[in-house]
Amino acid sequence: MRDVSIVGIGQIAVGEHWEMGLRQLALGAIQAALKDAGMDRIEMLIVGNALSGNLSAQNHVGTLIADFAGMAGIEALRVEAADASGGLALRQGYLAIASGLVDSVMVLGVEKATERSGSERDTALATVLDADYEAMPGAVPAAMAALLMRRYMHEHDVKLDQFEPFSLNAHANGALNPNAMYRNKMRPGAFAKAPIVADPVNLFDSAPEGDGAAAVILTTTERAVDMVPRPVRIRGSAAATDTLALHNRADMMFLRAANLAAGRAYTQAGIGPNDLHLAELHDSFTILTALQLEAIGFARRGEGWKPAVEGLITRQGRLPISTFGGLKARGNPLGATGVYQAVEIALQLRREAGDNQVDNARLGLALNLGGLGSTAVAHILERVE
Amino acid sequence: MRDVSIVGIGQIAVGEHWEMGLRQLALGAIQAALKDAGMDRIEMLIVGNALSGNLSAQNHVGTLIADFAGMAGIEALRVEAADASGGLALRQGYLAIASGLVDSVMVLGVEKATERSGSERDTALATVLDADYEAMPGAVPAAMAALLMRRYMHEHDVKLDQFEPFSLNAHANGALNPNAMYRNKMRPGAFAKAPIVADPVNLFDSAPEGDGAAAVILTTTERAVDMVPRPVRIRGSAAATDTLALHNRADMMFLRAANLAAGRAYTQAGIGPNDLHLAELHDSFTILTALQLEAIGFARRGEGWKPAVEGLITRQGRLPISTFGGLKARGNPLGATGVYQAVEIALQLRREAGDNQVDNARLGLALNLGGLGSTAVAHILERVE
Repeated sequence: MRDVSIVGIGQIAVGEHWEMGLRQLALGAIQAALKDAGMDRIEMLIVGNALSGNLSAQNHVGTLIADFAGMAGIEALRVEAADASGGLALRQGYLAIASGLVDSVMVLGVEKATERSGSERDTALATVLDADYEAMPGAVPAAMAALLMRRYMHEHDVKLDQFEPFSLNAHANGALNPNAMYRNKMRPGAFAKAPIVADPVNLFDSAPEGDGAAAVILTTTERAVDMVPRPVRIRGSAAATDTLALHNRADMMFLRAANLAAGRAYTQAGIGPNDLHLAELHDSFTILTALQLEAIGFARRGEGWKPAVEGLITRQGRLPISTFGGLKARGNPLGATGVYQAVEIALQLRREAGDNQVDNARLGLALNLGGLGSTAVAHILERVE
Repeated sequence: MRDVSIVGIGQIAVGEHWEMGLRQLALGAIQAALKDAGMDRIEMLIVGNALSGNLSAQNHVGTLIADFAGMAGIEALRVEAADASGGLALRQGYLAIASGLVDSVMVLGVEKATERSGSERDTALATVLDADYEAMPGAVPAAMAALLMRRYMHEHDVKLDQFEPFSLNAHANGALNPNAMYRNKMRPGAFAKAPIVADPVNLFDSAPEGDGAAAVILTTTERAVDMVPRPVRIRGSAAATDTLALHNRADMMFLRAANLAAGRAYTQAGIGPNDLHLAELHDSFTILTALQLEAIGFARRGEGWKPAVEGLITRQGRLPISTFGGLKARGNPLGATGVYQAVEIALQLRREAGDNQVDNARLGLALNLGGLGSTAVAHILERVE
């Protein structure tokens, strides 16, 4: 295999972009990434997108976007695995460069999430669950997260306000990020009083879906060091699955896919959790963040909320997470989320994170989930000194 | 890069499988491929699927199928590029093995095409076109094929019955294939009298969408030769794009993506078109078959219908195509089609094609298209002696 690095990154602000469709959102991120890398063409475009078929009546989006970006002729495809689409697109790009058969890949995550509203949007969001056994009886992802959270609180005797520090941290960081969907700071104590989405999941606990696009350009590390002043090396890359339906898991309180993906990525990188300087976790719901901290080796079973309560997850803490606001405050553009995570870690490792900078960051983990942890993708990114 | 071979193949009959959903269709092909390879587990599942989000309200199908097949834990994803999804899934599997990071991949194509009917199905099929500029004004793929065919007939002074031999050949071969959707032989002369789908495209000119699933298992050629008596080597693999919307093409009468993909695959394989012993082309409409023969170097511009009229495309001809019936008679299970093509060529190269056998086949081309040639994927498969 060939060693792989990121040589270009681009993103647009996550939000409600009523004036832009899928292709316009994509173009902004693509142009920014090309400019960042100082490139004008790439060989292959891999698009991570979760719901364009349902939300925009548009499939075949790899080719659509290659065409709109003036790159018709190159190879293009879409990777779909719910909100893990972006992370898996990055992994496919990584494998393509590693193979020795492709020299430059643009990995783009894009989602036009605001094209539908109300029950149409709920129906589309529910397609990431098991259509026959979860969505058909009426479940949506927030409802499944609520079941998971209620059970966790019961089994481990955890109170609702012990999840609050996750949201406080996300909003504190999001407030500094010009690309964040929500830049409001959250007042301590607001969590317990927030409107309920699906009891016990509340508004400050649940990440907002937004329109967005982010892109990274990959090439070999050998080429990268000559191309750009600060390449970001992909030192570990792995993916794993769990059951799609929550009720089929032998142990519902453990994110097995996240554990497997992170474990495989640690092994490939030859590091352990304590070597990380920051992590972008998939904080679509605070319960998932707590469970991810347990799955990746940062907390014992039932204690995933502790690192937050103890302040370890802030930018000054032992393991900063959601350093640009995470899904909660930066926003969750579904299939683009995994690429935003990679862009944000790259900014940290390049020391270009501005007000959001984590000091001395050299190794970062991106963990991107699909559904309620049914799919997990882990990437370990490293600053090339 | 590592050399890659196919060590297992599986398929189910294409048809209207009212009793089976997406996961059940998939399982049949997966089990057949594992049995064929003498394996009981694989590392990675790549699913080619075009329309499950729209037809079955089910996205996240990589994980769904890994789970249902008892493989939860492994890495899984879905690749989507309209009816080129299967071919692009094969290419991603090829790159994964070539990278040296993955040792076994199951590439599965699956489509549950009969879940919706009438205008719901048309709306879903139209999502492979440009949603804003083609589907919104009411176009569906058959209508775009009709525009293409009418223009071709006008520009090159070709008559409708000059397309008939494509259908005669497909049905003659499909009649012998137990996995074909339509096993009826077509009578010469029936073509011109067939009911019109979208003038001039008629019923015998247009491939039927069907439910289906096909799978291939990939590993390194080095391992393959010790594992199975007759591995099939992937000697060339390439993909390319054209504009998504037909009206944006500078030259609408030339399949540029097919030309680029086949050209890149020839170059990688170090062969030319005359070295091929058979080809599975994407014969969703006869006009596309004619244009593909021009794009891959088997006919001059405007003369893609001639190889059919001259009998070169039959199993006894110079370049047999649609040897198991093609999309026309075997059926077109959309995102699964590209994997059926690979399975069929593998059967030919292994000399296990039964009544459909092409004599002395050693090199075969699979050309899989998405939309009206907006995406193209070419694979050159070789018999390992």
